[in-house]
Amino acid sequence: MDFQGSLEEQIVLEDIGKEIFALAARIFPICRSITGDGVRQTLREIAAHIALDVHEVPTGTEVFDWTIPREWNIRDAYVKDASGNKVIDFARCNLHVMSYSVPVRKRVSLAELKQHIHTLPDQPDLIPYRTSYYAENWAFCMAHRQFESLRDETYEVVIDSSLEDGNLTYGEYLHRGESEDEFLLSAHVCHPSLANDNCSGVALLTHLAKRMARLPTRYSYRFVFAPGTIGAITWLARNEGRTCRIKHGIVVSMVGDGGGPTYKKSRRGDAAIDRAMAHVLGHSGPAPAILDFWPYGYDERQYCSPGFNLPVGLFQRSRYGTIPQYHTSADNLDFIRPEYLAESYRTIIKTIDVIENDGVYCNTNPKCEVQLGKRGLYSSVGGDAEAATKNMAMLWVLNLADGASSLLDIAERSSLPFGVIYHTAQLLHEHGLLARQQ
Amino acid sequence: MDFQGSLEEQIVLEDIGKEIFALAARIFPICRSITGDGVRQTLREIAAHIALDVHEVPTGTEVFDWTIPREWNIRDAYVKDASGNKVIDFARCNLHVMSYSVPVRKRVSLAELKQHIHTLPDQPDLIPYRTSYYAENWAFCMAHRQFESLRDETYEVVIDSSLEDGNLTYGEYLHRGESEDEFLLSAHVCHPSLANDNCSGVALLTHLAKRMARLPTRYSYRFVFAPGTIGAITWLARNEGRTCRIKHGIVVSMVGDGGGPTYKKSRRGDAAIDRAMAHVLGHSGPAPAILDFWPYGYDERQYCSPGFNLPVGLFQRSRYGTIPQYHTSADNLDFIRPEYLAESYRTIIKTIDVIENDGVYCNTNPKCEVQLGKRGLYSSVGGDAEAATKNMAMLWVLNLADGASSLLDIAERSSLPFGVIYHTAQLLHEHGLLARQQ
Amino acid sequence: MDFQGSLEEQIVLEDIGKEIFALAARIFPICRSITGDGVRQTLREIAAHIALDVHEVPTGTEVFDWTIPREWNIRDAYVKDASGNKVIDFARCNLHVMSYSVPVRKRVSLAELKQHIHTLPDQPDLIPYRTSYYAENWAFCMAHRQFESLRDETYEVVIDSSLEDGNLTYGEYLHRGESEDEFLLSAHVCHPSLANDNCSGVALLTHLAKRMARLPTRYSYRFVFAPGTIGAITWLARNEGRTCRIKHGIVVSMVGDGGGPTYKKSRRGDAAIDRAMAHVLGHSGPAPAILDFWPYGYDERQYCSPGFNLPVGLFQRSRYGTIPQYHTSADNLDFIRPEYLAESYRTIIKTIDVIENDGVYCNTNPKCEVQLGKRGLYSSVGGDAEAATKNMAMLWVLNLADGASSLLDIAERSSLPFGVIYHTAQLLHEHGLLARQQ
Repeated sequence: MDFQGSLEEQIVLEDIGKEIFALAARIFPICRSITGDGVRQTLREIAAHIALDVHEVPTGTEVFDWTIPREWNIRDAYVKDASGNKVIDFARCNLHVMSYSVPVRKRVSLAELKQHIHTLPDQPDLIPYRTSYYAENWAFCMAHRQFESLRDETYEVVIDSSLEDGNLTYGEYLHRGESEDEFLLSAHVCHPSLANDNCSGVALLTHLAKRMARLPTRYSYRFVFAPGTIGAITWLARNEGRTCRIKHGIVVSMVGDGGGPTYKKSRRGDAAIDRAMAHVLGHSGPAPAILDFWPYGYDERQYCSPGFNLPVGLFQRSRYGTIPQYHTSADNLDFIRPEYLAESYRTIIKTIDVIENDGVYCNTNPKCEVQLGKRGLYSSVGGDAEAATKNMAMLWVLNLADGASSLLDIAERSSLPFGVIYHTAQLLHEHGLLARQQ
Repeated sequence: MDFQGSLEEQIVLEDIGKEIFALAARIFPICRSITGDGVRQTLREIAAHIALDVHEVPTGTEVFDWTIPREWNIRDAYVKDASGNKVIDFARCNLHVMSYSVPVRKRVSLAELKQHIHTLPDQPDLIPYRTSYYAENWAFCMAHRQFESLRDETYEVVIDSSLEDGNLTYGEYLHRGESEDEFLLSAHVCHPSLANDNCSGVALLTHLAKRMARLPTRYSYRFVFAPGTIGAITWLARNEGRTCRIKHGIVVSMVGDGGGPTYKKSRRGDAAIDRAMAHVLGHSGPAPAILDFWPYGYDERQYCSPGFNLPVGLFQRSRYGTIPQYHTSADNLDFIRPEYLAESYRTIIKTIDVIENDGVYCNTNPKCEVQLGKRGLYSSVGGDAEAATKNMAMLWVLNLADGASSLLDIAERSSLPFGVIYHTAQLLHEHGLLARQQ
Repeated sequence: MDFQGSLEEQIVLEDIGKEIFALAARIFPICRSITGDGVRQTLREIAAHIALDVHEVPTGTEVFDWTIPREWNIRDAYVKDASGNKVIDFARCNLHVMSYSVPVRKRVSLAELKQHIHTLPDQPDLIPYRTSYYAENWAFCMAHRQFESLRDETYEVVIDSSLEDGNLTYGEYLHRGESEDEFLLSAHVCHPSLANDNCSGVALLTHLAKRMARLPTRYSYRFVFAPGTIGAITWLARNEGRTCRIKHGIVVSMVGDGGGPTYKKSRRGDAAIDRAMAHVLGHSGPAPAILDFWPYGYDERQYCSPGFNLPVGLFQRSRYGTIPQYHTSADNLDFIRPEYLAESYRTIIKTIDVIENDGVYCNTNPKCEVQLGKRGLYSSVGGDAEAATKNMAMLWVLNLADGASSLLDIAERSSLPFGVIYHTAQLLHEHGLLARQQ
């Protein structure tokens, strides 16, 4: 597989940015939670692009230390003031209801209502995103400015939700490569109308999977679309014996904004995926954040739990929790852009390129330099900077191709991009100057 | 054992600062040297607090490459001018006589007198501290300003000292813990009236020993109060076979001034004590000096000689030799303060806490995260910063408790204080989420 | 062997700077290339100082991936304008003819002439140095300013050169030491009138070899004077089985200018020569450039090819390619100076000192410090800075002489110059305080 960037590729990427955005926009309005029809509807949108396997796991199923909860669905919710005006309306924004709110239908005083309302006093125009999966409760979320203007009167409160035995739903798609060794790509599908977190990640992985379906690859690629935490735990519980096949992986979320890029390393810290992402980001632009693992965040928490310790990192643009839009109504479709989605996509395919194409080669003439000139490989008279880079890349590859250093090792030591090293190795291999070892 | 800081502890520490200061003040006037009654008197003061074993080792005893010297005692010393005025009087300050000065009683010209006087021209108001243990000589030390005002006349010089066969005296106290493995705490007792160097260290270790006597501990704690160099060498020579029991140790000196703190690592550089002290100081305040070993300083020179190579570092506030008060009459009781002594004490007990309580645990649910919420361990709704730290500490401990990482490893990797990690591990252990491995 | 710097040594070094310069000046005018009489004449000049072995290797001989080319010689060359004036005259500067230019004798238009002329538009007064060893061609090199003033007329072009079967010539000199293990010193002899690159290196190594001939050494020292690239490859091909004897080595070039110093490490990066040169340069002056290996430069490219991977670095003052004089007529005898040559010489002999004198010692009294005072080794009363350094050096050596650390290890850890550590170890050895282990 070789995605490396030609001009044609540039155009394809511009298009793919728009395609990813379109899918993100399509799934944005759906009210998702960790269970329920919102997840199913989202998976159906994904399945319109790839041959997704959808799994239903019944309420009460034990998954390691956890139990699949009851299924939550919601039809409508609002708060009406004494005049019958809806001061909060779920139909306008699904963040207005705390996820997993139990059904309620009653008249309450302002005082009582206020005990069931979350706001963000420091960001008075934004609606916060809140959940209460494992403690039964109900609540509304609203802008603080509006909250402060509520009059002291009686309100009608309605949450037309249900919390009943049902299923947890997740989807997965396996692209089979030459090897049964797998590259895991995982996105959470449990957040409602938050565009960056994680309509962006879901849409990006869907289009990546769609595109990879056409490509022969060395590794198999497993795409997991599951609710955060409980979904990843469920997947791991049901695939425990297969996890040793996962040789590389990334969790993908918040990949549509203009910040970052950010890569949080796996718990191992020196896995191939950690080195590959650090390398790709280091050559992609100014000051990427390459962070050591910490045990909070997205589903890398589960994949990197000590009993699994899988080589799975987290790729984001802005780092979660560090931007004002995080977990608020400001994380909407204006916050993400096709060009950022395309750039995130490019970063991931470049990383896949490194993982796919890394290998160990042996210089077939290891004693002294080979005479590149007589093979027409050497740009002899001075010349341009590109020729100089090509010459240096050949010298680096030939010098370090000692059967112990991989192409990524060579790229790191030479400070040249992996793509340059890889294409150079291909060229030298064609000329019989390198033998592939592994 | 667990000293970790409650408010009650704070009060205790304020008191202990005063108690340490009081003992330092009590032993300050005593004229100590590497042998003689000054050391004995000092050890008696220590013995008023703890069950000290006092050892007498006869002159002439061979200790490795050294020999116990003759015992030095001094009763009085002065220089009288022609008018009979004492221009130097040992009774006023015992720094006036060079330690180990041989007896002298004669009339001398100013010229001859000057050959036996040490001053500090750059610090003209201070009396220097000088010794001549192994070259027979006599001398006075005085302020340079006064020295310059000496008139050209005949002086009467008297040093009523004795240098005779006797003993070298040192004291030790062993607090027995569960294990015969030992933590060594060592302070030199050979300097005369220098408050910081080392009345502070002697007094601090005495009160630490006194307090530990009441506490059950895992390690045994050996406190050595001995003359610098020859005393430590003597102790090592007489306890050579037992040194393999010393698993951790610190030399304590100059712990009462407002500078530093300073920790000089053991020769090993990566001993548990080195990591523990660096950790404690790193969380204690701004910019501690954590220095690599060098073969000069206090008795760590002996403990870290290549044939022993014990894991013993040096803890000080200001680093020796770097402050103007060092080895002068300015190192008096005004130079040390109860609050600094208490802070040094706190640093040492926190370090002992780390050494005592470090251990390796195993997450009993290593696959995926445990559900903290259902056990009431997780502060679910956002909340305060303290709750966030508690949650993060639980996640760190559970993630890294893989049977290979110790609590100190976890504290280092998480950048959280050891105390937080330790208490978190205790809590998780109580809930059956951790099993103790070692 | 011990070159360490006394005053006498200083004087010797001043002289040696002049001697090296004189030899560099003597070989400067010779028109060298990778084959031919210029190399032979240069080797004869070297042979006037040392018992050089000169080897002739016939055209067509295969050396690894390369073949010895035909031999190139040149007698005269010029370009005459229509008036019969020599606008370019090889007799004035041998850089005027591109090395390996085929013979030519014809009348050409300005347009045709210009296709065979190299200039440096950015350095309009300098003549560039150009070669075309493996592509048959002819060309002149000239100052751009003069090039621009050429009138549009017919020119007579003459290059009276020959390119015929013959030999490649190189010289080597072996100084036999106690051991058959070798220290390789290599300089390229293929550049024509470029003073720094590499008359300086050739002349320095000649005088070093001359001086070492009188000294008993531990290692054997092999000096190789060969054409760049093809010469080193030829030497390696003919001595393949012997290369395992090379334990240390440096390529020496551009050692007469006022820049740098620069040391480029061997491919291994942590060879003894890498550590020794970094140590010597680190104690020699401000800000030496210690660079990681890269696979371009001088003959370290061959010595460090993966099939040999010899511990051979590159020593220069200015780094090649980074100064405006590089490969131009400005690299003349004004650009190099006796004092810089002497300084380079000193750096190399100091490095040889480290390699020759490094060793592992054992403290014979490893438990506690030895009593230096009773042996008269310790400067007891305070005193000067030099005495303090001596004392510290003794303490460092005794503390680290544990049978595992070499003197260079001790020098590195103590930040003291190797010479100080070495002389201290000698002193302690004489007093029976150290035993030599290896």
